[in-house]
Amino acid sequence: MPGLSDVTRGRILFGGDYNPEQWPEETWLDDVRLMKEAGVNSVTVGVFSWARIEPAPGARDFGWLDRLMDLLHAHGIGVVLATPTSSPPPWMGRLHPETLPRDEDGRTEWWGSRQHFSHSSAVYRRHAAAITEDLAARYAGHPALTMWHINNEYCTHDYGDQAAATFRRWLRERYDTLDALNEAWGTAFWSQHYGDWEEILPPRRAHYLKNPAHVLDFRRYTSDLLLECYRAERDIVRRHTPHLPVTTNFMPFFAGQDGWRWAREEDLVSVDVYPDPKDPLGGQYNAMIGDLTRSQAGGGPWMLMEQAAGAVNWRGVNHPKPPGLGRLWSLQAVAHGADAVCYFQWRQSRQGAEKFHSGMIGHPGERARGFREITRIGADLARLGPEVEGSRTRADVAVLHDWHSWWAGAQDGRPSALLDHAETVRAWHRALWEEHLTAAFAHPADDLTPYRLVVLPHLYLLDDTAVDNLVRYVHGGGHLVCGFFTGVADQDDRVRPGGMDARLRALLGIDLVEEWWPLDEGERVDCGEFRGSVWSEELRAAPGTETLAAYRGGELDGRPAVLRNGRARYLSTLPEPAALRGLLAAAARTAGVRPALDGLPDDVEAVRRGELLFLLHHGRAETVVRLPGRYDDLLTGTPVEGSLRLGRHGAAVLKERA
Amino acid sequence: MPGLSDVTRGRILFGGDYNPEQWPEETWLDDVRLMKEAGVNSVTVGVFSWARIEPAPGARDFGWLDRLMDLLHAHGIGVVLATPTSSPPPWMGRLHPETLPRDEDGRTEWWGSRQHFSHSSAVYRRHAAAITEDLAARYAGHPALTMWHINNEYCTHDYGDQAAATFRRWLRERYDTLDALNEAWGTAFWSQHYGDWEEILPPRRAHYLKNPAHVLDFRRYTSDLLLECYRAERDIVRRHTPHLPVTTNFMPFFAGQDGWRWAREEDLVSVDVYPDPKDPLGGQYNAMIGDLTRSQAGGGPWMLMEQAAGAVNWRGVNHPKPPGLGRLWSLQAVAHGADAVCYFQWRQSRQGAEKFHSGMIGHPGERARGFREITRIGADLARLGPEVEGSRTRADVAVLHDWHSWWAGAQDGRPSALLDHAETVRAWHRALWEEHLTAAFAHPADDLTPYRLVVLPHLYLLDDTAVDNLVRYVHGGGHLVCGFFTGVADQDDRVRPGGMDARLRALLGIDLVEEWWPLDEGERVDCGEFRGSVWSEELRAAPGTETLAAYRGGELDGRPAVLRNGRARYLSTLPEPAALRGLLAAAARTAGVRPALDGLPDDVEAVRRGELLFLLHHGRAETVVRLPGRYDDLLTGTPVEGSLRLGRHGAAVLKERA
Amino acid sequence: MPGLSDVTRGRILFGGDYNPEQWPEETWLDDVRLMKEAGVNSVTVGVFSWARIEPAPGARDFGWLDRLMDLLHAHGIGVVLATPTSSPPPWMGRLHPETLPRDEDGRTEWWGSRQHFSHSSAVYRRHAAAITEDLAARYAGHPALTMWHINNEYCTHDYGDQAAATFRRWLRERYDTLDALNEAWGTAFWSQHYGDWEEILPPRRAHYLKNPAHVLDFRRYTSDLLLECYRAERDIVRRHTPHLPVTTNFMPFFAGQDGWRWAREEDLVSVDVYPDPKDPLGGQYNAMIGDLTRSQAGGGPWMLMEQAAGAVNWRGVNHPKPPGLGRLWSLQAVAHGADAVCYFQWRQSRQGAEKFHSGMIGHPGERARGFREITRIGADLARLGPEVEGSRTRADVAVLHDWHSWWAGAQDGRPSALLDHAETVRAWHRALWEEHLTAAFAHPADDLTPYRLVVLPHLYLLDDTAVDNLVRYVHGGGHLVCGFFTGVADQDDRVRPGGMDARLRALLGIDLVEEWWPLDEGERVDCGEFRGSVWSEELRAAPGTETLAAYRGGELDGRPAVLRNGRARYLSTLPEPAALRGLLAAAARTAGVRPALDGLPDDVEAVRRGELLFLLHHGRAETVVRLPGRYDDLLTGTPVEGSLRLGRHGAAVLKERA
Repeated sequence: MPGLSDVTRGRILFGGDYNPEQWPEETWLDDVRLMKEAGVNSVTVGVFSWARIEPAPGARDFGWLDRLMDLLHAHGIGVVLATPTSSPPPWMGRLHPETLPRDEDGRTEWWGSRQHFSHSSAVYRRHAAAITEDLAARYAGHPALTMWHINNEYCTHDYGDQAAATFRRWLRERYDTLDALNEAWGTAFWSQHYGDWEEILPPRRAHYLKNPAHVLDFRRYTSDLLLECYRAERDIVRRHTPHLPVTTNFMPFFAGQDGWRWAREEDLVSVDVYPDPKDPLGGQYNAMIGDLTRSQAGGGPWMLMEQAAGAVNWRGVNHPKPPGLGRLWSLQAVAHGADAVCYFQWRQSRQGAEKFHSGMIGHPGERARGFREITRIGADLARLGPEVEGSRTRADVAVLHDWHSWWAGAQDGRPSALLDHAETVRAWHRALWEEHLTAAFAHPADDLTPYRLVVLPHLYLLDDTAVDNLVRYVHGGGHLVCGFFTGVADQDDRVRPGGMDARLRALLGIDLVEEWWPLDEGERVDCGEFRGSVWSEELRAAPGTETLAAYRGGELDGRPAVLRNGRARYLSTLPEPAALRGLLAAAARTAGVRPALDGLPDDVEAVRRGELLFLLHHGRAETVVRLPGRYDDLLTGTPVEGSLRLGRHGAAVLKERA
Repeated sequence: MPGLSDVTRGRILFGGDYNPEQWPEETWLDDVRLMKEAGVNSVTVGVFSWARIEPAPGARDFGWLDRLMDLLHAHGIGVVLATPTSSPPPWMGRLHPETLPRDEDGRTEWWGSRQHFSHSSAVYRRHAAAITEDLAARYAGHPALTMWHINNEYCTHDYGDQAAATFRRWLRERYDTLDALNEAWGTAFWSQHYGDWEEILPPRRAHYLKNPAHVLDFRRYTSDLLLECYRAERDIVRRHTPHLPVTTNFMPFFAGQDGWRWAREEDLVSVDVYPDPKDPLGGQYNAMIGDLTRSQAGGGPWMLMEQAAGAVNWRGVNHPKPPGLGRLWSLQAVAHGADAVCYFQWRQSRQGAEKFHSGMIGHPGERARGFREITRIGADLARLGPEVEGSRTRADVAVLHDWHSWWAGAQDGRPSALLDHAETVRAWHRALWEEHLTAAFAHPADDLTPYRLVVLPHLYLLDDTAVDNLVRYVHGGGHLVCGFFTGVADQDDRVRPGGMDARLRALLGIDLVEEWWPLDEGERVDCGEFRGSVWSEELRAAPGTETLAAYRGGELDGRPAVLRNGRARYLSTLPEPAALRGLLAAAARTAGVRPALDGLPDDVEAVRRGELLFLLHHGRAETVVRLPGRYDDLLTGTPVEGSLRLGRHGAAVLKERA
Repeated sequence: MPGLSDVTRGRILFGGDYNPEQWPEETWLDDVRLMKEAGVNSVTVGVFSWARIEPAPGARDFGWLDRLMDLLHAHGIGVVLATPTSSPPPWMGRLHPETLPRDEDGRTEWWGSRQHFSHSSAVYRRHAAAITEDLAARYAGHPALTMWHINNEYCTHDYGDQAAATFRRWLRERYDTLDALNEAWGTAFWSQHYGDWEEILPPRRAHYLKNPAHVLDFRRYTSDLLLECYRAERDIVRRHTPHLPVTTNFMPFFAGQDGWRWAREEDLVSVDVYPDPKDPLGGQYNAMIGDLTRSQAGGGPWMLMEQAAGAVNWRGVNHPKPPGLGRLWSLQAVAHGADAVCYFQWRQSRQGAEKFHSGMIGHPGERARGFREITRIGADLARLGPEVEGSRTRADVAVLHDWHSWWAGAQDGRPSALLDHAETVRAWHRALWEEHLTAAFAHPADDLTPYRLVVLPHLYLLDDTAVDNLVRYVHGGGHLVCGFFTGVADQDDRVRPGGMDARLRALLGIDLVEEWWPLDEGERVDCGEFRGSVWSEELRAAPGTETLAAYRGGELDGRPAVLRNGRARYLSTLPEPAALRGLLAAAARTAGVRPALDGLPDDVEAVRRGELLFLLHHGRAETVVRLPGRYDDLLTGTPVEGSLRLGRHGAAVLKERA
């Protein structure tokens, strides 16, 4: 199977989405000139070209694309060719209104934006297959073609009648019998028993709370239906170019797709990452997405498909990137395993909904600071390409995460609407990151033996396989730190007897969970050494369990807050950042996990990728890193020894001297 | 007519909703064992069993219910049998989509939750009648059957075309002629004159403000249409079991039903009460609902149909009950006249939308604190049953409340959106409660002579009968305290000349209401001794009227804030809690109203029910109540004299020694 | 062409909307008695009388209106006759549901309120024309008739299928070819190319961001379609009464109509103004609306069609007017050029959605403070009428404003959702107003030579004509102060090369706009002498440009914040109020612009209208105004010299003695 390394071959891919159909062809010449200047070696073409290629149903206009591909090839720029299926032309909606999705309230999502297609529409799928087929047939042999990009940011849903039909088909496949479905969904509750498959609908607007298992399955189904769309197009292009890798770009930590399952269907994993430049923890966010994407890619190289050169345009207030931040985050992506660093988009659009989304070449043009920074990043990446080839980022700690648990937990009618899966995972990853520990992500049923320490921030739903896996891991010598409200439900969102899986309770030293005590917005609970937020629990510890911290005052006075049972620890609240960092640091020390470098300043991140040591300064004040050996700084080409001075957003990539 | 006392016969009913269809039959045996342990003597069955009983249209499966009824009877547990009509099976929506309600925006409320029925659907009503008939016929003679429970928490609406037809029918009955309707609705405004009944619609989504009389009548109609549904089922079961009482469970202080009118159609009044365990005034709320429900029951016994053993699951953050609070609130219900203390639900569901709503037996099972507390409550109630039989809770103060006024006042286009009927009533009831005065509720046209003091927190709409009744009451020697923005509109929400009824102005000593000066969020107005919020008024007092408090500073400087005209007082603002308490206390003293016990600590509530004195400690710090006589504490069986020590959430039920 | 002066003839019109159909005819006699007492000389009749006149399709009932017109005429009260077309009778919606508008989400806006008509419905237009025709024919010769008022507050929209058809027709007229439309809308972006006119829809609900040029054109279209409705009715009445002026009432600073274009279609410009009586800058708001409306009227007299005697009823909390404020604001309108001061409405309604909107004669009746104040205002205006006749309010400063720029800038996907066009304009007008400078408003392509100083708070979109006009103005000797994020887009919302028009950059001394740095909610940026909010920019000044203020600290440390290039100044942030006032004051001094009077206290506004000097005291504490000459106070008839004492909300109208 082809992969990213078949494309990179000793280079780091650098470039971005390129939408030449928005520009006269004379601008194309300017584009390639500037691309060369910036060191661009790869562009993604065709993402939104459906109407350009197929201006009327069945028509084909490939001439412009032929010329473009040739031009890029002539300048040595590789092409990631996209199927244009995320934005059907207006004629499709007009001729086939049934291709348009309906939302939960029955409202149509009309054309005039993008992603106005129903995953369940046979008409849409037929048209998407046809243009994919023609595109693949035409460019399979083109020398510029390096990779396929299917659709764009799959993220739609449909609650209409066509979706009802495909939902039923999906449910039949999952449950086989209505009895099994009724059992799994607990339809004895509120008189919801289904006597006929045709009675089942998407979970549309209702008078009150919906059946949570129904909603959970609808989210599974939606992810799977979109995956069907992806696979259909992937299989077409694969047939034409079995030697070229295929991907689709994920949105970062996105709730709508089962990221573990989707990644398995890709030849290479790619992602779009848009940290807020004003978020003081933007660097941690970037690291987290890198860690997650690398883990989806099995630890191997991944592709940063989209980032912004400056500001985006979809926040309430869109901040540009201050000098140096774009370079820092690009090098950080490489540190975390990326072999491709790309942008949306090459040239900022003058028209359309994203004209205030920055580009590598922005409105102020090539004289502006923005383009000068891009050029510098291109030069840096060109130096690093041969050095990172084939190397992997090292992580001894795994963070467990699962989309199904997220889906199950993010519903109405729960103990607390303030408990947020993604925020909880991010808080734990932050603690590791601030402790200078590089983390991987893993599914709870994955083989965990490669990791010395496994942390599980919060997995409301854990199926039996996952629970058994955790027990086996700890019994086999692994160290586990587990967060609250975990293992509550089984695969059908059915609450487990006792409110928490019995095997897990035994592992963690919990006799009984008497009550969950969720905390109000802004409420803090005193745990002696620290204060907790979001959640607390009335626990009865099993005999022999050690209490690492106890609640003080309030209704839980004296009850255990943090437990330890041998190699397993349990946190029944969310400690404040410094305390969570301290708790995970203690567990890491016990487990023998060390940071990439000792004695680091707080705002310098150190990551080891293969033989290389990346030093990334997320702060603004100049700082000094003490170094234990003698190195070459690959970005400057100078030798470094004893210590290294890093300015605002400075970065170094060190290689130990022989 | 049968009533609650026909069921209790010297016992307090204790139990809850029981949904055995969610569990295998072997669990039923466990259930009855634990019910006996907890002292449960009554369970409500069948509330959501429609799909279980009628899995396909016209089918009937009663076998499981036969076995259950027999099992419960064998263990001496009485059954409140519910008609399952609040949640039709999925087949109904599929075969008869016209049974589904439409909201104001035209959106369908689909099945998949509960209460997805249109009160106006003839098909729904026919099916509901049929299953009610069969249920009543089958179990009329069953020895376990003690009472009927119709539907569940009637609360739906419909703006669809079927509702348009029944709305017109309702309007024809109310107005007889279109002229009368046009006159009542003031359709000369904004060109809304109706020339044909068919032109009238429910008040659907519109460009701007709707006709308030139209909206008011639609709320009246909605309450009445739901009542038609209730009455149809009630009449069926009554035909089969004329000796058994019939009820439907109200939601507490719920805006959707005319609670006075509905209560008259019930043999016994029941209510669901869910104070927030974290609300420091949760006990006051519980008292208020008890007082209102008892008043709906004509002062006689009522049934607490649902409360939570611990947390609910529909708030943003759902707090469990700390130790002792559930017992305190259960005893408080009895103090306020309840002869039945029940829960939703017996056994916490493992699946479905309410699996995080606590149960009498919860996820952690019989070893947990929750079940131990339930067992204690059961024992306490068993002791009290014979003692409270036939006794009534005493109240010398009445709080006036009317749903029609609430509906009229809670519309857009009013002087202030911050003026909230329910919050205002609660503020006044709180003042009485903190003053240790037990209150009744009354409709403004009720006979008020039983009360020494009548308080009217806020009744925007008062019809002529009500106004005359108030005048007659005061002229007959009664004492009245009246709140602001009262008597503004007549029965059609037509503003009365002068902006306030002239007879009422004369009664209260008001010459002219120059302007209403509503206050902003957080704004306070200085009234000398206290500060007011929400509202103020530019009043001209009539000659001879006493000014009890005047505004200071601001636009109303020197104008009267609180007026007294003989036995009638008027408050033109909402005083802060301590001041409102003081003002009502002064009125009570004048009227000769005394608390149940003198010298009570602030956080101890005292209520007299018949010969019994209930002492309820809502605080957490230990406190001492001084007692004037010699008593027996019925809960402990010990004699008490001089004083009584009450711990956190402690309670005592005292009976004076002969 | 007839105008307002043809109606006023030496009087100021004083009166209000009069809806006698809500009252029995005996009340009419009371009305005219009180009108005479208050000095009312003009009432607007028929605004919402459609159903009264045409109770069934095609029927006509004019008898009541005949009697009313005669009655008013007999009492010397002129009539502004309205076409009743803003609120069709219920029969229209029932018989012709296609006359009802659909919103963006496809939801119908039903009758039962007002303005439930689609501008695109041929049926609606036909009925509206017919009743207009009959009304005009019947009353053309009536001696009471003085003026026509078409419809009311045009403000609707429609996204339905009829609107799709008229939108296409409008687009064909604008673009002629689909190619031109595709080019203008930039449909190459996101595959939105239209191959057939029938593919184009209103910008309905979509999955993500819509095409901004599409949305912009839909707003232009909506304004134009409503204008078509207006023109159709205007042309009918004009045919019958070519000697009488025609107007329609604008809402103040309303986003839905292109106010410059609409004003050109009116014989006189009228507006509804509702400042919040509790807004400490309510007087500034009133001044701004007056300035804008006068400017729409070409500097000539305008009509204050609606204001409130006291409280309105559509805010969350509706504050009444404290004593004197209504008089102050009425005189202020005259100062700013109004020759008509009217109210909604004469008699407060007892029923309907606006019964809590105050009236000239309110619920408390003629004895109340409200009516006494109305009477005083009427007397004051009667005195001023002959004095203001034919005079114009003087303004040397123009504020540039354009609805198209507002529409283009107020879309999603912009750098900052906190940048609000109207708020920005108001902040700049406030600075001028606090500096005692009377301002006019102008379109950026207007002839600006009458003004010594032109300020341009924020015009995101500027077409070439406007840019050239500004350049010509400054090159011709004019002074310009220009605010940030201006000239970014051309007429199609296409970003100009460089992110800002090059000619404008040259004019303002800007070499390059490197980045926009919008500020977060509450964020302030240090500019040395002051702090800025909302926005900042990373600018590179052109050689020779003067930096008046520079950013300090943060990412823009040392970069220019305020630039000056000769007579042109540029503000790249929004200075705090005192600083903006200072910056504009400095520019005014340079340009030779002086206030109406020197040495004014802060809270006294001075406006010169013709020979008259209006002094308006917006504060509450008594204050003294020093005067340079000898005057007569026209309101009191007394001579004034040296200084004038003004009490709370006091006002004087001074005329220099010969």
